[in-house]
Amino acid sequence: MPPQRRRQASAHRPRTSPKRGRPGYDRETLVRVCVEVFNLRGYEATSMGVLAQELGISKSAIYHHVNSKEEILDAALTHSLSELERVVAEAEALGTPAVVELETIIRESVNVLTRSLPYVTLLLRLRGNSELETAALARRREITRRIAALIAQAQADGDLRSDIDARTASRLAMGMVNSIVDWYRPERADSSAPVADAVIDLLLSGLRRAAN
Amino acid sequence: MPPQRRRQASAHRPRTSPKRGRPGYDRETLVRVCVEVFNLRGYEATSMGVLAQELGISKSAIYHHVNSKEEILDAALTHSLSELERVVAEAEALGTPAVVELETIIRESVNVLTRSLPYVTLLLRLRGNSELETAALARRREITRRIAALIAQAQADGDLRSDIDARTASRLAMGMVNSIVDWYRPERADSSAPVADAVIDLLLSGLRRAAN
Repeated sequence: MPPQRRRQASAHRPRTSPKRGRPGYDRETLVRVCVEVFNLRGYEATSMGVLAQELGISKSAIYHHVNSKEEILDAALTHSLSELERVVAEAEALGTPAVVELETIIRESVNVLTRSLPYVTLLLRLRGNSELETAALARRREITRRIAALIAQAQADGDLRSDIDARTASRLAMGMVNSIVDWYRPERADSSAPVADAVIDLLLSGLRRAAN
Repeated sequence: MPPQRRRQASAHRPRTSPKRGRPGYDRETLVRVCVEVFNLRGYEATSMGVLAQELGISKSAIYHHVNSKEEILDAALTHSLSELERVVAEAEALGTPAVVELETIIRESVNVLTRSLPYVTLLLRLRGNSELETAALARRREITRRIAALIAQAQADGDLRSDIDARTASRLAMGMVNSIVDWYRPERADSSAPVADAVIDLLLSGLRRAAN
């Protein structure tokens, strides 16, 4: 992955005139900036003091919005996981053949990744060092399981080749999708559509080979 | 990725009888255990004191082998990067069509990942927070560039479809390969061959579609 630079986080300091002599943040913006700092420095290595410094506000101003560093992590993980779970649920509700629902999930997941890049990056770097992280990893595994179920159904429908284990295929497919966070830079792209197309072309034709 | 547990690192304490009242490590084993601790806790968040605690030796015993925490990181990154670069160089030297060299790189990269899992995991989690990390990321980008060149050559040869940008295809392919570190557990697998087969089946048939 290309190196990210420390100055990135501070570039997001609000440019509006400060409230009471210091920059003001709403909770959502505060969480977003903290997520970027976590991604640059590592969550464990980032103290509330460092966050205050990067935000340009006092620690007590942070505590006005959140009770702890973990609450910021929780908000960030909920953000990305809810989006990804919504993508899967909406695709499952389509009532189309599983292979079409799968294509929808892949395309929409790429969109979520590129749109919510810092949040998903944080999610993907978790190591399960706390109950909160372990719970988030369990939700990620459940998403992979639901995608594996769709792949298995599409295999049973004869739409996808059956000689690759559905669970392995799901992990590899999501691995390719997730790897986008390592190099995709929204500021250099007009839209995520070409990336999503390339992922779908590669994955679905790979999964379909036996049917061709 | 599944949660890893803190006890993992200490499970690697040497079981041989201690030298002078404390466990003895050679440099290679010391680096390997440190790499596992870095992967569990994050490199930045791990102090020499924590490493000493996990190794069950004193800080001065660590300094007998290395001058700094960064020297341990350097040794670990050199380990994984040299292996991956060797894979690419050996494939490029085959003198076979580019598509065959590409298949060799994918298969051998999976083997390196599964064989040197902790080292590659550490490499893939770098954020470029120091000159050392930036240099490692540059070496990773160079590997991706050489693979993109092989994909472009295989496209020119008519062996791979030409409607996916070679650079994007290279990033996505290596993204899929690298994602294996998030779920592959050597202790649960007889060998990495089935995973390598699945990756090659998915990627090469995906890349080949237009030629089928």
